[in-house]
Amino acid sequence: MPTDLPNERAIRKPGSMELDPTAEPVAIDETARLIASNKVEGTDVYDRRGEHLGTVHNFMVDKVSGQVAYAVLAFGGFLGLGENHHPLPWRALTYSTEFGGYVVDIDPGALAGAPSHGPGEDAFADPGYGGRVDDWYGTRLAPA
Amino acid sequence: MPTDLPNERAIRKPGSMELDPTAEPVAIDETARLIASNKVEGTDVYDRRGEHLGTVHNFMVDKVSGQVAYAVLAFGGFLGLGENHHPLPWRALTYSTEFGGYVVDIDPGALAGAPSHGPGEDAFADPGYGGRVDDWYGTRLAPA
Repeated sequence: MPTDLPNERAIRKPGSMELDPTAEPVAIDETARLIASNKVEGTDVYDRRGEHLGTVHNFMVDKVSGQVAYAVLAFGGFLGLGENHHPLPWRALTYSTEFGGYVVDIDPGALAGAPSHGPGEDAFADPGYGGRVDDWYGTRLAPA
Repeated sequence: MPTDLPNERAIRKPGSMELDPTAEPVAIDETARLIASNKVEGTDVYDRRGEHLGTVHNFMVDKVSGQVAYAVLAFGGFLGLGENHHPLPWRALTYSTEFGGYVVDIDPGALAGAPSHGPGEDAFADPGYGGRVDDWYGTRLAPA
């Protein structure tokens, strides 16, 4: 499927997924260069103004290349009720030590129109889904 | 740090991280090409004879490139007691539909001599740790 990832090294700031190195017990699962998968899951996500949007539900990995393709953000809902899952190109997330979570530099209103699916939905089983996510964010993401 | 990953696409079989497509609720988090991070964590790991070795505790992702670098396997112990964490190059894991988990094609006895750390240990904070893992498995791993 089409993806921006081949260019990612060039367009995104190094360490943009970095969690707060001063926070414990991050040190257990994080190094300067590597981060543990379970440290990314559940991390808070904010808009550029620091408004809390949701959390990282999980992220999708390309089984062949081992490349992280999408971060799936869980927005809204309470205990999963009414919760909605928004897959974003992985490069869309930048870690903010100020907010203590990832920042998505996209108008929250615009996010409402982005591809999304229900928590129990098998959205990525549609081979075109990832491509639609790439296309939707391709023009809206400021190069990190 | 040195890593075998740049050659991974060439040396490992496509889909080697694939979970059993017939199992539910895998369909919710897996596609032919992508797998969800939380589906990899907790997956059983066997030796080539189908002997259960442990489970995937988590995996380490390169924050800059978004590339999965190491799978951290949890071996032994009961409820975490006496458990030991063995980081393996990601390419070392091949999914077996026969065993319903990942297979590590390495002599279990040899694994005892591989780099490992305690569950609470900040092993990857040592910049040389990943390199030692790469070196140890580099000569022992059959190209997938």
